[in-house]
Amino acid sequence: MSFKQRAITGLTFVGVMIGLTLAHPLACAILFFLVAALCIYEFSGLILVQDGSSTTNLSRRILAMTVGLYLPLIALIQSLISVSPTSLVIYGVPITLFLFSSLFLFELFGKSAQPFPNIGFSFLGMFYIGLPLSLVIGLSTSIPQGNFLVLSILFMIWAGDTGAYMLGSQIGKNKMFPRISPGKTWEGTMGGVASAIIVAVLCSLVFKDIPLQLWQWMILGAICAVFGILGDLVESMLKRSLGIKDSGNILPGHGGFLDRFDSFIFVIPFIAIALFFFTMLR
Amino acid sequence: MSFKQRAITGLTFVGVMIGLTLAHPLACAILFFLVAALCIYEFSGLILVQDGSSTTNLSRRILAMTVGLYLPLIALIQSLISVSPTSLVIYGVPITLFLFSSLFLFELFGKSAQPFPNIGFSFLGMFYIGLPLSLVIGLSTSIPQGNFLVLSILFMIWAGDTGAYMLGSQIGKNKMFPRISPGKTWEGTMGGVASAIIVAVLCSLVFKDIPLQLWQWMILGAICAVFGILGDLVESMLKRSLGIKDSGNILPGHGGFLDRFDSFIFVIPFIAIALFFFTMLR
Repeated sequence: MSFKQRAITGLTFVGVMIGLTLAHPLACAILFFLVAALCIYEFSGLILVQDGSSTTNLSRRILAMTVGLYLPLIALIQSLISVSPTSLVIYGVPITLFLFSSLFLFELFGKSAQPFPNIGFSFLGMFYIGLPLSLVIGLSTSIPQGNFLVLSILFMIWAGDTGAYMLGSQIGKNKMFPRISPGKTWEGTMGGVASAIIVAVLCSLVFKDIPLQLWQWMILGAICAVFGILGDLVESMLKRSLGIKDSGNILPGHGGFLDRFDSFIFVIPFIAIALFFFTMLR
Repeated sequence: MSFKQRAITGLTFVGVMIGLTLAHPLACAILFFLVAALCIYEFSGLILVQDGSSTTNLSRRILAMTVGLYLPLIALIQSLISVSPTSLVIYGVPITLFLFSSLFLFELFGKSAQPFPNIGFSFLGMFYIGLPLSLVIGLSTSIPQGNFLVLSILFMIWAGDTGAYMLGSQIGKNKMFPRISPGKTWEGTMGGVASAIIVAVLCSLVFKDIPLQLWQWMILGAICAVFGILGDLVESMLKRSLGIKDSGNILPGHGGFLDRFDSFIFVIPFIAIALFFFTMLR
């Protein structure tokens, strides 16, 4: 893989992400549903390998994809046709209960060597990947200029990541997690937080219609930097736990797809918690 | 353990269950919260053993108990003080997101050998044990004579179990699941369904204030028998997967506590699905 090919893949990826997120809240929602689908596809492959099953085991793959994409699918349907909360409960609760129980019944008839770890990993995929991406879809379509907020989160995470790398490689000395990720230092983390907060301030100036105050933007920036690093560590832990290096090879030369979104999916729940608090203060 | 001791333990257990369930919807709700606590306590012990941790590892045990009891606790609080749906969302969503994310962060700092299976098993306990028992608490306090319906479900499951054993041991020939439970036969299952439906009809005559029609009672009876057997098989699969015989020894001479409720916890989601459908028909 030449540098040129890597650069083309990377720029195309970033261009598509920014373009669709900016285009329209619904385009943003559909984009992140596709991101969820690709992440879950990779993750379900990891589960199948872990179980010793073939990745061409179609029924297992379909079940894993269904469970993982369940929450993003509900969020997408909700943003497309605005189901009433009552209908969401009346139809959502029984379908959810059936889906959960079917995980257990599938393993009863599925003759796997490791039935319970399989069920556990399915729930894990649902909440590690599906839940955050369903929140992104909801965020994008439920608040004013929500898609611009999603883009800002991506920018703040990229800024945090870049800032941490640049400062860490220059003056980094005190290691954070030598066990999981030997490259991370406390100095780099400080640089990442500073960069993300600077980008947060810039975003607050550009996206004036997003109902957030400056100090709230700065908190979101700090969250993106800190939990972005932790999200990266959590995914390293996942891969180390499963004995693999890359989550997949969908983007040529750029590692797995899940590797590109490990910080993002981990940051989103904390962004959502912060937004809930900001709403309470109003 | 003498027969007399076993009989005393068994009768006390059944007496307490029936007495508290009959006494009052809130007594029933509190009883099943305690059942959830004991089941989750046993289950968290199984996770700790599986991980190679000591069962006296307090921080892990507290986290596993918190996650497992989270849904029953919400159901109990809801039945005691009737929180408004809006407050439930405003407070429940951020707390849930924080709880889920903290599972990942705990493993990052917890230095376990198997971080991801641990998180998966925590989610598994939440939905395998916590979710059904939170539904029981909700059922008991949210519909007229809900606690009598909970008692009826227990009676129908016991009838199904006893009927399956009696007919199966007399005329049982065709094995259902020789791999997981060599004793189960199709003939026994038929006997269990018939017994549970007979008890369902009796319950419909005794608990006239429960808003269900006769055919609906009969469907609930069939669900109790069929999914009761499957629930027993699912828990056998869990224990086989973890390489253990009994889930614990809280009830002397009667195996584990979870072993006593394996059918019940598996039946409840299907009862809830059926009740949702019955409500739609009205």
